Amino acid sequence: MSFLKEISPLVKNYFQSGKDGLSRRAAQITAEIQQGERRNYNEVLDLSSGDLHRGGIKPITFVRQVLAACLYPALLEDDSLPLDVKQRAESLLRECDGGSVGSYTESSGIPKIKHCLSQFITRRDGGVPCSPDNIFIMSGSKTALRIMLKLLIRSEDSCQTGVLIPVPTYPTFTLMLEEEEAAIIPYHLCEEQGWTLQMEELHRALQAGRKICNPVALYICNPGNPTGHLQSRKSIEEVIRFAAEERLFILADEVYQSCVYGDDTEFYSYKKVLSEMDSTISSTVELASFNTASKGFMGEKCPPVVGQIALDLMADPPKPGDPSFPTFSEEVQSINNTIRKNTGRIQEVFAELPGISCHPLKAGLFVFPCLHFPPKAIKWAKKRQMEPDMLYCLHLLEETGLHVRPGCKYGQRKDSHHIRLFVGTQENIMEDALQRLKTFHMRFMKEFS
Amino acid sequence: MSFLKEISPLVKNYFQSGKDGLSRRAAQITAEIQQGERRNYNEVLDLSSGDLHRGGIKPITFVRQVLAACLYPALLEDDSLPLDVKQRAESLLRECDGGSVGSYTESSGIPKIKHCLSQFITRRDGGVPCSPDNIFIMSGSKTALRIMLKLLIRSEDSCQTGVLIPVPTYPTFTLMLEEEEAAIIPYHLCEEQGWTLQMEELHRALQAGRKICNPVALYICNPGNPTGHLQSRKSIEEVIRFAAEERLFILADEVYQSCVYGDDTEFYSYKKVLSEMDSTISSTVELASFNTASKGFMGEKCPPVVGQIALDLMADPPKPGDPSFPTFSEEVQSINNTIRKNTGRIQEVFAELPGISCHPLKAGLFVFPCLHFPPKAIKWAKKRQMEPDMLYCLHLLEETGLHVRPGCKYGQRKDSHHIRLFVGTQENIMEDALQRLKTFHMRFMKEFS
Repeated sequence: MSFLKEISPLVKNYFQSGKDGLSRRAAQITAEIQQGERRNYNEVLDLSSGDLHRGGIKPITFVRQVLAACLYPALLEDDSLPLDVKQRAESLLRECDGGSVGSYTESSGIPKIKHCLSQFITRRDGGVPCSPDNIFIMSGSKTALRIMLKLLIRSEDSCQTGVLIPVPTYPTFTLMLEEEEAAIIPYHLCEEQGWTLQMEELHRALQAGRKICNPVALYICNPGNPTGHLQSRKSIEEVIRFAAEERLFILADEVYQSCVYGDDTEFYSYKKVLSEMDSTISSTVELASFNTASKGFMGEKCPPVVGQIALDLMADPPKPGDPSFPTFSEEVQSINNTIRKNTGRIQEVFAELPGISCHPLKAGLFVFPCLHFPPKAIKWAKKRQMEPDMLYCLHLLEETGLHVRPGCKYGQRKDSHHIRLFVGTQENIMEDALQRLKTFHMRFMKEFS
Repeated sequence: MSFLKEISPLVKNYFQSGKDGLSRRAAQITAEIQQGERRNYNEVLDLSSGDLHRGGIKPITFVRQVLAACLYPALLEDDSLPLDVKQRAESLLRECDGGSVGSYTESSGIPKIKHCLSQFITRRDGGVPCSPDNIFIMSGSKTALRIMLKLLIRSEDSCQTGVLIPVPTYPTFTLMLEEEEAAIIPYHLCEEQGWTLQMEELHRALQAGRKICNPVALYICNPGNPTGHLQSRKSIEEVIRFAAEERLFILADEVYQSCVYGDDTEFYSYKKVLSEMDSTISSTVELASFNTASKGFMGEKCPPVVGQIALDLMADPPKPGDPSFPTFSEEVQSINNTIRKNTGRIQEVFAELPGISCHPLKAGLFVFPCLHFPPKAIKWAKKRQMEPDMLYCLHLLEETGLHVRPGCKYGQRKDSHHIRLFVGTQENIMEDALQRLKTFHMRFMKEFS
């Protein structure tokens, strides 16, 4: 039996989009050649997707040096790296928790990097200001586009949400719209005029769309993929006026903005043009624009590959006899010892404290002790219309600066209360945390007993 | 006016999940302390989320050395790196197109790394075989979980798709289920028994769930977050039997599998236990299990951060006077020159060829020439029930090994036909591609004229 036999056709389309018959055949031919089959050519030459580094274009040295130094800060002592590379890496590492690029960051991105991006956008737009608060860093521009679609598309509406998209356009965006159950409203670019966007066509498409759905957004790809067309400032102004009149949200996909050739051509961002238009327009039209480090001269599609390599190293670590083995096993052992010691200390401290109990930790990286609050404490929380463990955590934070999460966030049996503590810290940090917890907990239990 | 005023409440919940009142207050207190406010403590101590490196645990040297060498292969010449690090980096780089981690990979991951992971799983499971074909590498286990949910949840059904999930569990998974419009069927873990999973409770939850939805999947988190509980082999067998009887797909979240403490404890994977059960069960129960490099001793949440750093470098590249500036500007200039030369050559070659026309490339990384097929060629394609440009691309690939994409994948006006060519390659590669295209195109046009 197979429960997955009838998977959603939308998902099926999406999975199949990566490999159509052509790509599958290309992979087959490559395999056949490797197995010795003789053809008129020695290898498949792939110009089907936009991959600079596969096409033999070398990565930018500066970028790779800084990334390498951030990943392995011992390189900061290395004389072979230029001074500005080291300074940049040091300044970026200062913004990472624990000085490690392996830490979590704020979900919209590291503040210093958002600030740097805002200055880049301001320079790009000839001084038009850009606030870091309006910048959201995601894993690639497609993730960002998908999130914007989720914000714009209302599945509750009886009428389907519509998005205007150019023809031609790259297929993954069309599939994403289908998957999010948006209605696709195509507008045709004019090939005779060098793939320009024609206003009459936009109007026609919108009227046609209004008959079948509720159009809320206009998607633009500038510079164009696959057309290689670049919009003029005048054309952008016309599009913005159209969006204002028709109350459409503009999704400006500008990921190829650094790829502009020809001496008489200049890239204008939708943000710049919009902000320099009449205030009745600039203050009303809503715009999300998209850029990335994956396209353009950087061509760094690297984040997922670096993650893949990390998986390889997890799956196949150094073995006894390998030069790296002693350090590796020492480090892993040390982490395990630290966590064992931490969990031991947690048990010791909890055993001394009234009203808190915890099962010995067997696995994972968290303990989830139960708090037995005095009735007074529960009353006090109810009065404030809060879960008792949330109120406990808020006061623990306020009074001691220790930040842990309340059990109510994870679900728990009615009238039971918990906190969740992370155990993967240095021992001195855990000791500090336990002292803070102890002090607060004693005072709290005394106050409400 | 704001079109986003009434965003979907599901999306709102999801965005707010990252920062609840507690986390916001923690950030505020940190800011207040930085601005000089005095408190009983000097800094907020955060044990709320599972971030090893923030907690002062040092990254594993071997992992960081290999990643640094992959990103900046000049380090392979560096005497300071151990030999096994260099060998590993070299062997991984051989699997990356163009020898660069900045290239695309197959969408399920680099084959060699999938092979390495399959061997890791086989070793972990004491020899139970694991096929690389069943491994899908994603950007984190949450992405993989979401894709499994998309496969399992059928929005067309009149009855909501239900998923059994433990209480307590971490909140982002619950929100993901809400967002994907699945019904949540909670089963309570038994705190009195050390947070074990009780079969009676699973049965109770399923019966209750059947009254409100169509339960299709059972989500297990082992080792548990936040409970730190580890399932015994016997408990896993019971759960699998239950899933077999009730026809439930098992989603086994095993991301903390490397974090197991205590001498009498051992991690058993669902995969191993399932494969060692009676064949009536092992051949029918469907299982997806999840692991990651982000949890456990590796603690590498790095991919998005490396991407963020790349953005910083894109936004603020070396300036004149910086030691890296000469190399940087030379490299960027060289890429731009190459692309200009390539597009120039493309124009030259196309000008000579019959039945192909292309606008001068202004921007982006693709050209999208129009193919004017002879009527005979169109008839021939129709007979094969294919788009003429798809058939052209398939034959171009077959005869010359040149892989480009047909316009029908991007949308085009009825009866117009195109191909899309990537222009960001080394000049000799582009010349090779143009010669292959020319040879094929001449033959093709002659054959069908």
